[in-house]
Amino acid sequence: MCPHALIPFKPSGSKSRLSGLLSLEEREAFARAMLDDVIAAVKDVNCRPVIIATELYDSEDIQVTIADKDLSGALNEVLSQGAGPVLIIMADIPLANGQAIRRVISTQSDIAIVPGRGGGTNAIFIQDPTKFRVDYYGMSFLKHAKIAKDMGLSCEVVDSFLLHTDIDEEEDLVELLTHGEGKSRKYLEDLGFILSAEDGRVKIMRESPRSNQ
Amino acid sequence: MCPHALIPFKPSGSKSRLSGLLSLEEREAFARAMLDDVIAAVKDVNCRPVIIATELYDSEDIQVTIADKDLSGALNEVLSQGAGPVLIIMADIPLANGQAIRRVISTQSDIAIVPGRGGGTNAIFIQDPTKFRVDYYGMSFLKHAKIAKDMGLSCEVVDSFLLHTDIDEEEDLVELLTHGEGKSRKYLEDLGFILSAEDGRVKIMRESPRSNQ
Repeated sequence: MCPHALIPFKPSGSKSRLSGLLSLEEREAFARAMLDDVIAAVKDVNCRPVIIATELYDSEDIQVTIADKDLSGALNEVLSQGAGPVLIIMADIPLANGQAIRRVISTQSDIAIVPGRGGGTNAIFIQDPTKFRVDYYGMSFLKHAKIAKDMGLSCEVVDSFLLHTDIDEEEDLVELLTHGEGKSRKYLEDLGFILSAEDGRVKIMRESPRSNQ
Repeated sequence: MCPHALIPFKPSGSKSRLSGLLSLEEREAFARAMLDDVIAAVKDVNCRPVIIATELYDSEDIQVTIADKDLSGALNEVLSQGAGPVLIIMADIPLANGQAIRRVISTQSDIAIVPGRGGGTNAIFIQDPTKFRVDYYGMSFLKHAKIAKDMGLSCEVVDSFLLHTDIDEEEDLVELLTHGEGKSRKYLEDLGFILSAEDGRVKIMRESPRSNQ
């Protein structure tokens, strides 16, 4: 039990598709708040979080590993070390909670995958990491399902919208303001973002001027 | 057991946000294929489908009720008749399968809600329909959660991306071509749609000329 939870994280310049709404500084603070929400969720089910960062990143109490190669390469190097079951979970899925993650790590299959929106992989749980390798970017969900099949591993697809919802674009913030319960939702609300339902479609609006906290 | 599954359906002019990709005729055929997928899923768990159509619609073996008022009004009229537990499920969530719907109708709460993307409600299960009323459009998920609370009913939010994913826009078709298993996926594939991963982001492309089947 107590699998490691590897959390890839890009501290600088992330979430560029939100640049119409948030400044660079705000986007980076927002990305950190989402990371904190994911860390809280994995801790809630006794996983041991390890941040796989693309550059130096200070975290008070979480182990940080700097990835000196591409994401898949860095993760596969960790997997090859084979120290028990591993969960890999993205840092931009702040709706994650313990209950959803428990469904993933309690799989009876060799592998459990939670697809992300747009063909990606938002979480993957690997019982024996020496038998699997990851291949992110593009249609990674289909790639991971195929890798499992090719390696003769059973694979469960976990049906969770909380883990499926990665926050990349403006409309994704509607999900966070509707369902979020953590720091990243509060961060948006402190900036003045609210939900608005004009002509039946729900959008987000920024109500007050930017706070300077 | 065997709750009724009410399925609101608009036979004509639906899915206008796909008009950049599909002709009116194709959109209507696509909407019918999605409806068929939803019907197959509810039948798989022994729910009795009833189509709540906005206009005359022929269905070989499914009961069709014509709604002569707005959607919420029409549904509330059915609910007030109080003939046992009722599932209301949208016609544009073709990833729905029996396993996901079983999680909804086996709730231990008075109400189970599956949020749709963008603040909506894609499925709602009501143990005693005389005690609840629906209020669709806009932020209906939050409205339904509040109605349940105001009426003193316990409410479970079911965490399913298969039921969360309504097909409205071009990018939603990526989900259908990635995860779909029914008629609506096949309909898109027969029209020549495929997945494409350029610059890491997955999109859909139309490969062959339109078939005329």
